[in-house]
Amino acid sequence: MAKVGIVMGSDSDMGAMSKAAAQLEEFGIEYEMRIISAHRQPDELVEWARSAEDRGIKVIIAGAGMAAALPGMCAALFSLPVIGVPLSGSKLNGTDALYSTVQMPSGIPVATVAIDGTKNAAILAARILSVADPEMLSKIKEFGAKGKEAVIAKDARLQEVGYKNY
Amino acid sequence: MAKVGIVMGSDSDMGAMSKAAAQLEEFGIEYEMRIISAHRQPDELVEWARSAEDRGIKVIIAGAGMAAALPGMCAALFSLPVIGVPLSGSKLNGTDALYSTVQMPSGIPVATVAIDGTKNAAILAARILSVADPEMLSKIKEFGAKGKEAVIAKDARLQEVGYKNY
Amino acid sequence: MAKVGIVMGSDSDMGAMSKAAAQLEEFGIEYEMRIISAHRQPDELVEWARSAEDRGIKVIIAGAGMAAALPGMCAALFSLPVIGVPLSGSKLNGTDALYSTVQMPSGIPVATVAIDGTKNAAILAARILSVADPEMLSKIKEFGAKGKEAVIAKDARLQEVGYKNY
Amino acid sequence: MAKVGIVMGSDSDMGAMSKAAAQLEEFGIEYEMRIISAHRQPDELVEWARSAEDRGIKVIIAGAGMAAALPGMCAALFSLPVIGVPLSGSKLNGTDALYSTVQMPSGIPVATVAIDGTKNAAILAARILSVADPEMLSKIKEFGAKGKEAVIAKDARLQEVGYKNY
Amino acid sequence: MAKVGIVMGSDSDMGAMSKAAAQLEEFGIEYEMRIISAHRQPDELVEWARSAEDRGIKVIIAGAGMAAALPGMCAALFSLPVIGVPLSGSKLNGTDALYSTVQMPSGIPVATVAIDGTKNAAILAARILSVADPEMLSKIKEFGAKGKEAVIAKDARLQEVGYKNY
Amino acid sequence: MAKVGIVMGSDSDMGAMSKAAAQLEEFGIEYEMRIISAHRQPDELVEWARSAEDRGIKVIIAGAGMAAALPGMCAALFSLPVIGVPLSGSKLNGTDALYSTVQMPSGIPVATVAIDGTKNAAILAARILSVADPEMLSKIKEFGAKGKEAVIAKDARLQEVGYKNY
Amino acid sequence: MAKVGIVMGSDSDMGAMSKAAAQLEEFGIEYEMRIISAHRQPDELVEWARSAEDRGIKVIIAGAGMAAALPGMCAALFSLPVIGVPLSGSKLNGTDALYSTVQMPSGIPVATVAIDGTKNAAILAARILSVADPEMLSKIKEFGAKGKEAVIAKDARLQEVGYKNY
Amino acid sequence: MAKVGIVMGSDSDMGAMSKAAAQLEEFGIEYEMRIISAHRQPDELVEWARSAEDRGIKVIIAGAGMAAALPGMCAALFSLPVIGVPLSGSKLNGTDALYSTVQMPSGIPVATVAIDGTKNAAILAARILSVADPEMLSKIKEFGAKGKEAVIAKDARLQEVGYKNY
Repeated sequence: MAKVGIVMGSDSDMGAMSKAAAQLEEFGIEYEMRIISAHRQPDELVEWARSAEDRGIKVIIAGAGMAAALPGMCAALFSLPVIGVPLSGSKLNGTDALYSTVQMPSGIPVATVAIDGTKNAAILAARILSVADPEMLSKIKEFGAKGKEAVIAKDARLQEVGYKNY
Repeated sequence: MAKVGIVMGSDSDMGAMSKAAAQLEEFGIEYEMRIISAHRQPDELVEWARSAEDRGIKVIIAGAGMAAALPGMCAALFSLPVIGVPLSGSKLNGTDALYSTVQMPSGIPVATVAIDGTKNAAILAARILSVADPEMLSKIKEFGAKGKEAVIAKDARLQEVGYKNY
Repeated sequence: MAKVGIVMGSDSDMGAMSKAAAQLEEFGIEYEMRIISAHRQPDELVEWARSAEDRGIKVIIAGAGMAAALPGMCAALFSLPVIGVPLSGSKLNGTDALYSTVQMPSGIPVATVAIDGTKNAAILAARILSVADPEMLSKIKEFGAKGKEAVIAKDARLQEVGYKNY
Repeated sequence: MAKVGIVMGSDSDMGAMSKAAAQLEEFGIEYEMRIISAHRQPDELVEWARSAEDRGIKVIIAGAGMAAALPGMCAALFSLPVIGVPLSGSKLNGTDALYSTVQMPSGIPVATVAIDGTKNAAILAARILSVADPEMLSKIKEFGAKGKEAVIAKDARLQEVGYKNY
Repeated sequence: MAKVGIVMGSDSDMGAMSKAAAQLEEFGIEYEMRIISAHRQPDELVEWARSAEDRGIKVIIAGAGMAAALPGMCAALFSLPVIGVPLSGSKLNGTDALYSTVQMPSGIPVATVAIDGTKNAAILAARILSVADPEMLSKIKEFGAKGKEAVIAKDARLQEVGYKNY
Repeated sequence: MAKVGIVMGSDSDMGAMSKAAAQLEEFGIEYEMRIISAHRQPDELVEWARSAEDRGIKVIIAGAGMAAALPGMCAALFSLPVIGVPLSGSKLNGTDALYSTVQMPSGIPVATVAIDGTKNAAILAARILSVADPEMLSKIKEFGAKGKEAVIAKDARLQEVGYKNY
Repeated sequence: MAKVGIVMGSDSDMGAMSKAAAQLEEFGIEYEMRIISAHRQPDELVEWARSAEDRGIKVIIAGAGMAAALPGMCAALFSLPVIGVPLSGSKLNGTDALYSTVQMPSGIPVATVAIDGTKNAAILAARILSVADPEMLSKIKEFGAKGKEAVIAKDARLQEVGYKNY
Repeated sequence: MAKVGIVMGSDSDMGAMSKAAAQLEEFGIEYEMRIISAHRQPDELVEWARSAEDRGIKVIIAGAGMAAALPGMCAALFSLPVIGVPLSGSKLNGTDALYSTVQMPSGIPVATVAIDGTKNAAILAARILSVADPEMLSKIKEFGAKGKEAVIAKDARLQEVGYKNY
């Protein structure tokens, strides 16, 4: 049963949002991925987000650009955590989406990650699931350890070959 | 029958939105004024905006601050013109609301006015109604003429007394 | 008889403004399209915008970049609605045009759409004309329905093939 | 046993962070509240954040202004979710803290809320705990329902007395 | 005969623009000071700016806030130098006026000074007049020398009393 | 004898500054063009700018990017008008240079034009020279008339062939 | 013999710059403090900064607001480290001064601290002097230890009395 | 023995940071260059920065992008000067890194240079070392003299061939 819902407003966001899906797969987290536009399909969004809890969804990852209403509307319709990813692509380079996602009014928070931070959204979702899932927490720690090792390996290579041959 | 719907997401926006109402009254335009939060009452908003056309509403004026979803959601639910007023009040001084209101995705425009431009929102609503209402168009022209006369009077006073005694 | 006037200050804006024209054509709305520079041809602008109402123009769409004076001057000279499109192209990526278009003083509103939002400007014009034209309102609704169907089709394809094969 | 850790870098942030504590109390969530500066006490921060999991902490709320390193360093040291609250107070009005909190590199997400959004940080923490706590989820829903009722009551009063007497 | 025209769009700008007038007086430069709104009185503006040259005006100082069209329109109508002063007062603190004043399209320059830099606008006007007026050039040099002496005196006092007693 | 001094801080600015030179040539204005860095050659700058008046220079055009000190230092050393051109090229797209050029302290104005507005800088220089040169004023007017005719021709072509064949 | 030169362009910056002086005194570092304006007194600045090394000055702290040329010009004239403090006070809240101070061209660095970060400028100066002064390095470490203890004391009080009584 | 430590958080920053290394080599300054991520390897960072002084490091150059915690954390762990280089690469073009680097809280300064100003970071390090090293100071002066000569040569060429053949 899917534990994470990934939703985007347009298939032009697929390239960015795929990174969230791929990261969830790496963690072995089941997800459902949907294209639903807050502005073009308000009814579908209401239905999808309202029924998400019943389908076992524990976290929603919503990515949107420009006047990004999708994350906030998800947070209005779904009581568990909603992670918002501001997407760039407009002339304002994602500043518009960042403000539209993070500056939520009191009462309805959206857990916002970096502009185009789709991979981090998935990691945050995994951290949230870890609150109730010790196995997932182990995976997060292992993931962090791998990230650390990767940097150590790069540094080792730098020490070995120097920056000119790196 | 109300021709304009004024909607805000919180009564903390009443001070600003009242100027829109007062201006509509000056033009003799009937309106209904509502407090409905896109993020706290998505169902109420859907119902109100969907049924607005049947109640005779021709234009909606939606004012919101921060991650202002209200104007865009109104434009998603109502097919006639929606005027968005980005409201200041946050630490970003209304830049957040401006971006959230004006940067709408293709297909769903919001007619955006200046930050805190509630009076101008009402004037724009009157201009829109004037498209089908010659009497209203006359009022707009008269209003413009008065605005011009006011500046002329101020300039005349300046010429008379000079800036030191103005 | 043309119902919408499209005006730009330079033919370098033609690529962007053409999308407004194409969208109006899709709605079957007659329009006149002009290149008139507020800063190079103030007299021509005054004459064109002043006489627009007599030619049957109900809405003006004015697009301009940088210190975009065109939309505001149109709104000063024409009493029916003026839609302003801030165009990018400068080093400030359209932020300059956005501020110059939307931050109008009290009394003279410009209905501002997104940076480079020329298509949305045409849709907003159609919404405004719908206030007095039930047939146009039907077209807007049909247009919205098509937009929704397009997203549904994309989502269906995503469900079928998955994001990796999308 | 405390489930949420609230940490701030300076007691000048106490006024803002207290709202997070008060909101957690309203939800009946135990928390520990600490003043630890990432820049003045790196060792203390490492120890506190590293040992938080063993003390039963499931979520950390970290608030900081200016070059806000605290939330990111917590996310580096603690594998469960970290909520970052960018605090205003500097000449940049919290934009500096927003960027320093939300723009985390790939691998280490911080769940960022609005500038000064301390109350929302607590609500987000409660939503996260709800993933494993049906009772908390009920409280979140109840909280949402109360928020909705409050707006309905304000709207009802507006309908009754009008904006002039509101 | 007036050599400088000072124009503002609203008497709310009088406080700022008075500093330009006072500085011109200090230099013994005759000026005319007018309130004419580009957006409310396009015809009056056209007439005033067009006829300015015939009245002996050599430089226009135009101050405006928000979507400041006044300086640019003056530059479109008057072939001698136009100095633009972006005025603060809006929620965007004058950034809107700065962009609207300085980002002029190719062909129509506005000599822009700092936000609220009305005194500097007058000094720039005097420098421009100095191109053809050796006496004015002497006054500019004397003014610069006085400015320098003032700083020297302050520094001398600092050396004498120290910063604690300054 | 050169009437305009063009100065840039680096030959990487030559491409942009050349447009100013070409425009001055079009107006038949003699100029001297120099590469002098405010930060690398303070003494040379002091000497060049101080002696400019004696060489007959009436206006200086100074272009610089990033922390653009050149225009302001010229204005400190030369009592006639200094035109500043903020140049893009940095990661801040010229916003840094715009602020560094236009936000001059009281007493020392720089006549700032648009980011990369080198052509406009030359036109502004010509307008300034026109204050004492009726022939130059005629050229400016002729230049404006040509600019207007060019737009008229473009508009005529648009009316003839339509936007699709433009 | 003074080891640090503190320079500001105007006595309106005295309030801010005094904090740098006070901090240097706390570290027992001799300094000279001057008011010299880059734009009003270029010659004085050249002389002061050029001769600073001979007077034993090892570090210059230069504070300026708006188009802050002072730090960069000091760095052009003095070969040892220059610390720049962007000062707020303008309508741009110090963003103008930050960009004018930090965005130095290649070859001439200014060590920039936070907007209004005058106290940190003094601490940075002390750190720089510590490179050759083990005693000063001990003071820096002691200063850091005190800063840490102060936070620990605040945290202890919070643990004792709770946030409501803090 | 290395006198300067160069540290970056990711090998994607190698291209930029290499310019710092190359410049140090030009000055004959020994350095150690490391890849250590503040967010992925907090322990390694603590150890490296804490022990740097014992290894003879006098200055640390830390470069990072986005929510750049690395420079600030170095400054928290190392008592001698830390130079921060905000790196671009994110959608915010380095503004995020600039704010995260320069807006340090009181007590812990980071000497910040321009966005991507890695070469200037090395020059600043050399200036700092010059405080105790007269030979290095000579090199800095020679470096400045060469920079000046390079501009003089370019200007000479411009005077010889003109801008069209430059």
